[in-house]
Amino acid sequence: MKIGILGTGGVGRTLAGRLAELGHEVTIGTRDPAATLARTDPDFMGNPPFSVWAQQNPGVKLGTFAEAAAHGELVINAVNGGGALSALQSAGEVNLSGKILIDVSNPLDFSRGMPPSLFISNTDSLGEQIQHAFPNTRVVKTLNTLNALLMINPGMLANGDHSVFVSGNDPTAKAAVGELLRSLGWQDIIDLGDITSARGPEMFLPLYLRLMGLWQTPIFQLKVVR
Amino acid sequence: MKIGILGTGGVGRTLAGRLAELGHEVTIGTRDPAATLARTDPDFMGNPPFSVWAQQNPGVKLGTFAEAAAHGELVINAVNGGGALSALQSAGEVNLSGKILIDVSNPLDFSRGMPPSLFISNTDSLGEQIQHAFPNTRVVKTLNTLNALLMINPGMLANGDHSVFVSGNDPTAKAAVGELLRSLGWQDIIDLGDITSARGPEMFLPLYLRLMGLWQTPIFQLKVVR
Repeated sequence: MKIGILGTGGVGRTLAGRLAELGHEVTIGTRDPAATLARTDPDFMGNPPFSVWAQQNPGVKLGTFAEAAAHGELVINAVNGGGALSALQSAGEVNLSGKILIDVSNPLDFSRGMPPSLFISNTDSLGEQIQHAFPNTRVVKTLNTLNALLMINPGMLANGDHSVFVSGNDPTAKAAVGELLRSLGWQDIIDLGDITSARGPEMFLPLYLRLMGLWQTPIFQLKVVR
Repeated sequence: MKIGILGTGGVGRTLAGRLAELGHEVTIGTRDPAATLARTDPDFMGNPPFSVWAQQNPGVKLGTFAEAAAHGELVINAVNGGGALSALQSAGEVNLSGKILIDVSNPLDFSRGMPPSLFISNTDSLGEQIQHAFPNTRVVKTLNTLNALLMINPGMLANGDHSVFVSGNDPTAKAAVGELLRSLGWQDIIDLGDITSARGPEMFLPLYLRLMGLWQTPIFQLKVVR
């Protein structure tokens, strides 16, 4: 499948690399490809410069947000939450119209220090705001409760015996995303309901971030025991 | 141990009954004991009148919030979130001073319909507000992510192979609560940190409530796989 991924950070790269390995044609999008390629320092999360990663992943193309979105039959929003709506506006409504948009971002607010709080929560969610801004796009919130390494390789932890959630208004879009998740190794995929149910997994982040602080690793995950 | 439980609803009763079975001296507190005993209809959650339950649990005493708190060496707040601070004020600062207060309540806001949202979240929590209002009380937030039947009998689900969280400022209070939890059958007790970490388990409620709506049962729980 042709997949466009918005965001060249750790999450975008990890998803792009694995999806290309699985045989998908992946274009990864950024605001300014020349600037992204010109960077020589690690980013604020400690990821090496994109150019280093790109050399190791020659099968993945780099383009603008709009080029990546236009390329994808399916698009993944993997920019940070604070930049998500702006990146999607740059990608362009016409390039997203009718398509499935997987939203893996979280509305993290780092302005009050660590651990971050949320800049949207409780009676709204980032998933809903994206769906509201792009009514002709089929938004599916998923994978936001996980570190990128686990997203693409759930089996690295407890043989994959843990859970992932999907939220979205379109059942066929959720079914297609479920298929993609299974191809990554996910077994327990829980359909929470329409896009308003994205509040749940987004509001899980404060608990997730405490556990990550406690254990100094993001390699853990929820299993919903029932 | 002498335990005071605030709240005669399903959670308070379930905890009271089990803790009395385990040999503790339990007094359960309510705003107006005569009114609580006089009720003949089920409450809004469908629990039978308290008097019916009291006849089946003769070892548990009924008193005012203040009497229950004064009785307890350890006190449990099991009133609904919206009534928690008011019930604790009725219990009286002097009756809570120096004691461990286990807070199992959630700041659920039913005013916008179902599922409820939270009336405190993100940069604050009900656990923190209680600690702030009663600075001489050692507040430990725990068990709020669970149905009452699971609180007292984690083994009824997956042989107890799931997780419970504790948050609080006082390590010795958390250790004592951990011991009480182990006596109920809990094995995986995760100490999240100080009382500000109560935001995590409280903000888990929106996900919990979606899952409960989906499966039409509260008998499920999180296991943190790591």
